[in-house]
Amino acid sequence: MKFCVIGAGNGGRAFAAYLSSKGHPVNLYNRSFSRIADIKKKVGVIASGEIKGYFPCNLITQDLELAVRDVDVILVVVPASAHKDIAEKIVKYLSQDQIILLNPGRTFGAVEFRRIIEKKGIAFPIFIAETQTLLFTSRQLKKNGVKILKIKDLVDFSSFPNKDTFFVYDTLKDVLPQLNPVDDYLEMTLNNIGMLLHPIISLLNAGTMDCGKEFKFYAEGATPRTCEILETIQNEFNKIFKILGLKQFRFCNWVNKSYGVKKKCIYDAIQNIKVYENINSPKQLITRYFTEDIPTGLVPISSLAKFLGIETPIIDSVINLSSVLCGINFKNEGRTIGGLDLEEIIKKRITTEELIDLGIKQKIPIN
Amino acid sequence: MKFCVIGAGNGGRAFAAYLSSKGHPVNLYNRSFSRIADIKKKVGVIASGEIKGYFPCNLITQDLELAVRDVDVILVVVPASAHKDIAEKIVKYLSQDQIILLNPGRTFGAVEFRRIIEKKGIAFPIFIAETQTLLFTSRQLKKNGVKILKIKDLVDFSSFPNKDTFFVYDTLKDVLPQLNPVDDYLEMTLNNIGMLLHPIISLLNAGTMDCGKEFKFYAEGATPRTCEILETIQNEFNKIFKILGLKQFRFCNWVNKSYGVKKKCIYDAIQNIKVYENINSPKQLITRYFTEDIPTGLVPISSLAKFLGIETPIIDSVINLSSVLCGINFKNEGRTIGGLDLEEIIKKRITTEELIDLGIKQKIPIN
Repeated sequence: MKFCVIGAGNGGRAFAAYLSSKGHPVNLYNRSFSRIADIKKKVGVIASGEIKGYFPCNLITQDLELAVRDVDVILVVVPASAHKDIAEKIVKYLSQDQIILLNPGRTFGAVEFRRIIEKKGIAFPIFIAETQTLLFTSRQLKKNGVKILKIKDLVDFSSFPNKDTFFVYDTLKDVLPQLNPVDDYLEMTLNNIGMLLHPIISLLNAGTMDCGKEFKFYAEGATPRTCEILETIQNEFNKIFKILGLKQFRFCNWVNKSYGVKKKCIYDAIQNIKVYENINSPKQLITRYFTEDIPTGLVPISSLAKFLGIETPIIDSVINLSSVLCGINFKNEGRTIGGLDLEEIIKKRITTEELIDLGIKQKIPIN
Repeated sequence: MKFCVIGAGNGGRAFAAYLSSKGHPVNLYNRSFSRIADIKKKVGVIASGEIKGYFPCNLITQDLELAVRDVDVILVVVPASAHKDIAEKIVKYLSQDQIILLNPGRTFGAVEFRRIIEKKGIAFPIFIAETQTLLFTSRQLKKNGVKILKIKDLVDFSSFPNKDTFFVYDTLKDVLPQLNPVDDYLEMTLNNIGMLLHPIISLLNAGTMDCGKEFKFYAEGATPRTCEILETIQNEFNKIFKILGLKQFRFCNWVNKSYGVKKKCIYDAIQNIKVYENINSPKQLITRYFTEDIPTGLVPISSLAKFLGIETPIIDSVINLSSVLCGINFKNEGRTIGGLDLEEIIKKRITTEELIDLGIKQKIPIN
């Protein structure tokens, strides 16, 4: 099977090494040259950690057309805020039955990709899926290096539309046995942990970050009171999840599942995750913790709530203040239910009982 | 002239020393005993700094009735969030022509006091005024001490209703020549600098404060990007000020007037105020910077905006997040246009031209 990896950063290099180590030809694409210059010179990446050695690539390029030509699977490994741009550029080079897997999709990544492809009127089947998190914990090293700290055991993924999930799973399961198919795309894509943690902790430590002082992002930045904001936002998520008949969003359950830590409140959970202990804050204020997690996480969630007639004042407050800090109108830039033509799909998920139970007046015609 | 000083903290002790030094009898009241125990033992305060020496008090008491009996002027020197409580307790002990001066009133302090007195149906005149800022920069010391770092040259004040301002001025001008009468109560009370600076800088450094790390509150906490939030909030203030025909709110003008520092943006202004340089952050997260400045500053401003049909998303976001951090519903607890029966007074200040100019549909009947 032939692969194209889009993005040669932390995750993209790890994928290139991993796939090459399994004997699959890999085309590695990156938009800017600086990130692939040394990989091109050496015709491959040098991995350390869980995978060790030199792994050649079939092609290292800034030419998207060459990168995706004749490949079976396209792995998109860029910040979710760049998915739209990639989709718009890639669409004219796609061919029948190609699989596009977003690593990760954040909230509604596969929908956004699908909508852009639909608008171009492509007649042949393309399969679009997204993972919930990146398969690797990895760090890009100097030159053509990558350190693969961990390959996760299990990574949830799903396709949009749902029905494509098993084709993607069947195609990829031998190469990427970690992929765990989730029946319900909506449930998977809304369980976006990054959007809960990153923007809020960044916002409530904005002064410290902006004046250039480093701190332990979780150990010091997530305090009992700042975690109250996380708890409140989790409650806002769950008003949405309830009305859509989805399992409640529980950060503590995710921590238990992912790290084997059993705690009852978000603060205790965060403070007991070993790998979080020494994670430093970013060296500047404006990072993907805002520019990715807000437009592809909190904005779609807020938009979904609005569509359902649910108020999310705390999520909206985080979006508002972050927009001023970053100088970006995230509500305009981000993914929304309207912008993604998701109205009809969402409507079908609402039950009248749940509306009444929540004390919300029925604002939406229920099919 | 006989004085009562309510509150024996930083400001109250300074007032007691100042008035006693001028030969006026002073009754000093405090709700809790601990703050006045040593003053009672020594029957006065020891001042250092701009005023030096031992200054006796006429009475040091926890009995509000005794404290205000037969005095001409009552100086209230407590956090503005306690004004309501003081007003409710003091009302039954007031006598004709007494002056009550709130130091400072924050936004609508004198209105709140007036409304509580009105509800009790008091038939004789009482004069209620508020200053914009505390006359002293002072620190309470151990035992019965106070250090008076600075007596300000000029402190704006005004009465509610406006017409009482000159009676208060005439009565107090010899004892407190620093009092500068402002014709328009509304303009004075809305120019509340604390509500702009304190909550926002605290919120955007909440993690650092809550994990117990000290930092320079202004020098490190007010950064280029956190000051963008201050600029945006100043713009929100000015939409209100414009519709009410008030002079625009300019933090930089205030800094120029107060500290002789001429700068064009809030960040540069803050970073060039000498006395701000070494001010440390509070040692804990929940302080008057939230519990006073939000309910008696940002909440009334937000309520006023709502009444005028103006959106203030950034102010509201600060209120929302601070409410969760503090576990207090500030929107319910704080001063509002409705709660203070200010609707008719505000309506009279609006001009139709200003509504049209702002592109706001006329929501309010204009008298």
